[in-house]
Amino acid sequence: MSTPLNRLTKLVGEVADLRHAADLLEWDERVCMPEGGAQVHGEMLATIRRLAHEKLTADAVGEALDQLNGHRGGLDPDSSLSRMIAVTARDYDKATKVPADFVAEQARIVSAAQPAWARARSACSFSIFQPHLEAIIGLKRRYVTFFPSADHPYDVLLDDYEPGMKTADVKAILGTLRPRQVELIRALAERPPIAAAFLHVPYAEQELWAFAVDVITAFGFDWAHGRQDKSVHPFATAFGADDVRMTTRFVEGQPFGLLFGAMHEAGHGLYEQGVSGAHHRTQLEGGASLGVHESQSRLWENLVGRSLPFWEHFFPKLQARFPSQLGGVTLPQFYKGINKVERSLIRVEADEATYNLHVMLRVELEIALVEGGIAVEDLPEAWNSRMQEYLGITPPNDASGVLQDIHWSAGLLGYFATYTLGNLIAAQLWDKFQAIDPARDDQIRRGDFSALRSWLGSEIHQYGRMYQPRELVKRVTGSSIDPEPYLRYLESKYRGIYS
Amino acid sequence: MSTPLNRLTKLVGEVADLRHAADLLEWDERVCMPEGGAQVHGEMLATIRRLAHEKLTADAVGEALDQLNGHRGGLDPDSSLSRMIAVTARDYDKATKVPADFVAEQARIVSAAQPAWARARSACSFSIFQPHLEAIIGLKRRYVTFFPSADHPYDVLLDDYEPGMKTADVKAILGTLRPRQVELIRALAERPPIAAAFLHVPYAEQELWAFAVDVITAFGFDWAHGRQDKSVHPFATAFGADDVRMTTRFVEGQPFGLLFGAMHEAGHGLYEQGVSGAHHRTQLEGGASLGVHESQSRLWENLVGRSLPFWEHFFPKLQARFPSQLGGVTLPQFYKGINKVERSLIRVEADEATYNLHVMLRVELEIALVEGGIAVEDLPEAWNSRMQEYLGITPPNDASGVLQDIHWSAGLLGYFATYTLGNLIAAQLWDKFQAIDPARDDQIRRGDFSALRSWLGSEIHQYGRMYQPRELVKRVTGSSIDPEPYLRYLESKYRGIYS
Repeated sequence: MSTPLNRLTKLVGEVADLRHAADLLEWDERVCMPEGGAQVHGEMLATIRRLAHEKLTADAVGEALDQLNGHRGGLDPDSSLSRMIAVTARDYDKATKVPADFVAEQARIVSAAQPAWARARSACSFSIFQPHLEAIIGLKRRYVTFFPSADHPYDVLLDDYEPGMKTADVKAILGTLRPRQVELIRALAERPPIAAAFLHVPYAEQELWAFAVDVITAFGFDWAHGRQDKSVHPFATAFGADDVRMTTRFVEGQPFGLLFGAMHEAGHGLYEQGVSGAHHRTQLEGGASLGVHESQSRLWENLVGRSLPFWEHFFPKLQARFPSQLGGVTLPQFYKGINKVERSLIRVEADEATYNLHVMLRVELEIALVEGGIAVEDLPEAWNSRMQEYLGITPPNDASGVLQDIHWSAGLLGYFATYTLGNLIAAQLWDKFQAIDPARDDQIRRGDFSALRSWLGSEIHQYGRMYQPRELVKRVTGSSIDPEPYLRYLESKYRGIYS
Repeated sequence: MSTPLNRLTKLVGEVADLRHAADLLEWDERVCMPEGGAQVHGEMLATIRRLAHEKLTADAVGEALDQLNGHRGGLDPDSSLSRMIAVTARDYDKATKVPADFVAEQARIVSAAQPAWARARSACSFSIFQPHLEAIIGLKRRYVTFFPSADHPYDVLLDDYEPGMKTADVKAILGTLRPRQVELIRALAERPPIAAAFLHVPYAEQELWAFAVDVITAFGFDWAHGRQDKSVHPFATAFGADDVRMTTRFVEGQPFGLLFGAMHEAGHGLYEQGVSGAHHRTQLEGGASLGVHESQSRLWENLVGRSLPFWEHFFPKLQARFPSQLGGVTLPQFYKGINKVERSLIRVEADEATYNLHVMLRVELEIALVEGGIAVEDLPEAWNSRMQEYLGITPPNDASGVLQDIHWSAGLLGYFATYTLGNLIAAQLWDKFQAIDPARDDQIRRGDFSALRSWLGSEIHQYGRMYQPRELVKRVTGSSIDPEPYLRYLESKYRGIYS
């Protein structure tokens, strides 16, 4: 006899198979696809994403959920079964509220907007992109109307990436961060600049790659269930916990980008590999949110990978691989060099001290666009004046200003805040782990990441999407999402580096 | 207004998208997948193949075909529209005749048979595999009953790989080939053996790879619409004509396997790249049959790639890459070395002169198994006695005899004949091209393959699955599939090599 649970499991299992396949196709597009394959890949992906959507929104899913919801009262609300039903119901409700004609219109608008954005960026001219961005903002305003119960229209956009997060919370967090980070940058700018000539000499890509693999392996990445490749833009993806793929890149003149990129993506990869097998082929697969995911990547990249204890262990190994480049460099020189702060124009090249300011600017502009407090045509001006206010520099053109990121052209609004939330959550986790394991830094100094890895696994990774980010952070740290630990970390780190 | 043609195009377009995705997943499994990913890949593939089957066999497809069939009378029967309708109707009929429970049972039996075959091969013991092969033969006998109008039960199995081909034709072809090829081998065995020490010295894999890429590029392979990777078993696959992927391998001690494997797969790849864009996302995509496909791979690998004119052009280039290995080798020595004939046990390592005998043996045994003329338990004995009769050698154990190929354990019966048909068709095409382009060998001597490539493109490739193999060969060569050209080619080539 088929029970509602059997039926739901089978139906969402198929959705998961299709989602995995679509994610694999996207990985292939970015890592393997020959340039002429774009059309046929687009066709495959469109059909598979559409079928996944059809199957998730099928009446049979709604019926099974209705029957199961009737029984949820008897379940422990923290059990994975109860959570699975709740999360699936939430995904089903969201997916069924968006009409198919809207999805099709969005696909049309975005597929025109992306090449227009690329042309605008090449031509350093926002006006080429402006009508497309206006259409996208119009689209997002229509999207918001499908969820009339939201407190704030921007909540609806946030919720797609950071379930349960509210615009009011984000505004409060940014309000605390902004003055302290602006002040920090201003103070650092008055210190003598750090010299780091070793950052600008040639390094052999293959040797850096091998070193990065050693580091990631020490972190605990399981190569029997994953791989690392090259792509133009580094990313991580997973088809369940058993096949997790990461990429990094080598850019001439920015040698350590390969290494820090690899550590960053390994943070995402370790999260995906750590999700419990019990959630496989359910809606509980994957990470709690983009912000929680980013907390993992930032933790391994920055809190571990740019720390002094880490390099106490790894710097001699790096020197042994690059004797001519690093033989004459001391550990303190190296540590300061890879942490030097620069007021730069481009978010993806920003250091830890300035990164959040880049994000803040975008989030504030997005909220204003959705609220109607700013018009699209005024965006370049608003961007530039905020850059001057926060970082003390003004972009020479729109390409290195308002046009630098792909997100808006891809229809991704509500996404940027997750980068900053990730930084904050990372610092909260870092402090909590230190509190329960005071030997943390000594372990890292020995190149031993097993306690950290296993703590993250049991506190965060295994749960997949069972808990929403705010709830998860509360469970682990006892606190809400809080900018203080991150600000303390930044201020103390840079006080040390810049004396 | 939706016409039956619009509806059919949309429905089979989705089937094509799913087929492309499944083929890409299989490519990924063999080229990229980490070892621990097998289960999740199996799940994705099963769901996508099942959806493709459901969509191809949907009632809506049958209804659109019925309506279109009513109009076919007014169409030129050789038009691609008329052919598309006919081929789709044929695929639909075959797919709908096989019940879902049979497909599921076959999947179960095969998934148990494959590891059993691997265990049997490791243990050199046929008895481990015997009950599984008996189940597979039972399955194939049941499969045959779904197509009661066939003249011979084996016709049904052949038809899946070689549409329209009859067992009686295959028997007649093998009857002509067998004595002449056995006689040729016997005669060559009496000649002094060819010495080719250069085949057994070390070669750098990367240099061989680069040389293979040069050759394939000269053949006309379009790298903007394809790529080449490494895999344990070389293969080619395509997701439409715009993304065509080939693999080759490097085995220590068999250096030129990489090169000839690459040329072989490039033959398949050129075919797929040459299919007309008009057939994209229809049932006319891909090659006419496995045999016609194999005619292309064999043509480029053997008739081109193991010919003297080819090496007149490429040998100096190969010598320049490998001065220490080949500096002292003359062109005639090299040419004879790569064409030396050996009576060996393993099909996939066989040379041109012996290859068909390996295939023949398997086809004869398959037909006898399906007809009931031989029992599974008697297979090792029957295999060994034929090996002695055809090649003059007897396998020392079942692993290098009856257990060497994976095909039967995968449920692939009716497949082997296509290898020999490919050889024969290749020689027929080769002769025909020579007849219309007498400068053929001079072009190859200059490394110019453009006329050959373009002739194959216009005579074979562009049509995709429009014509069945026998019809296609007749159109191009004016003759039915005929072993004489291949026998003449073999006899003349080896007379030259062995004086």
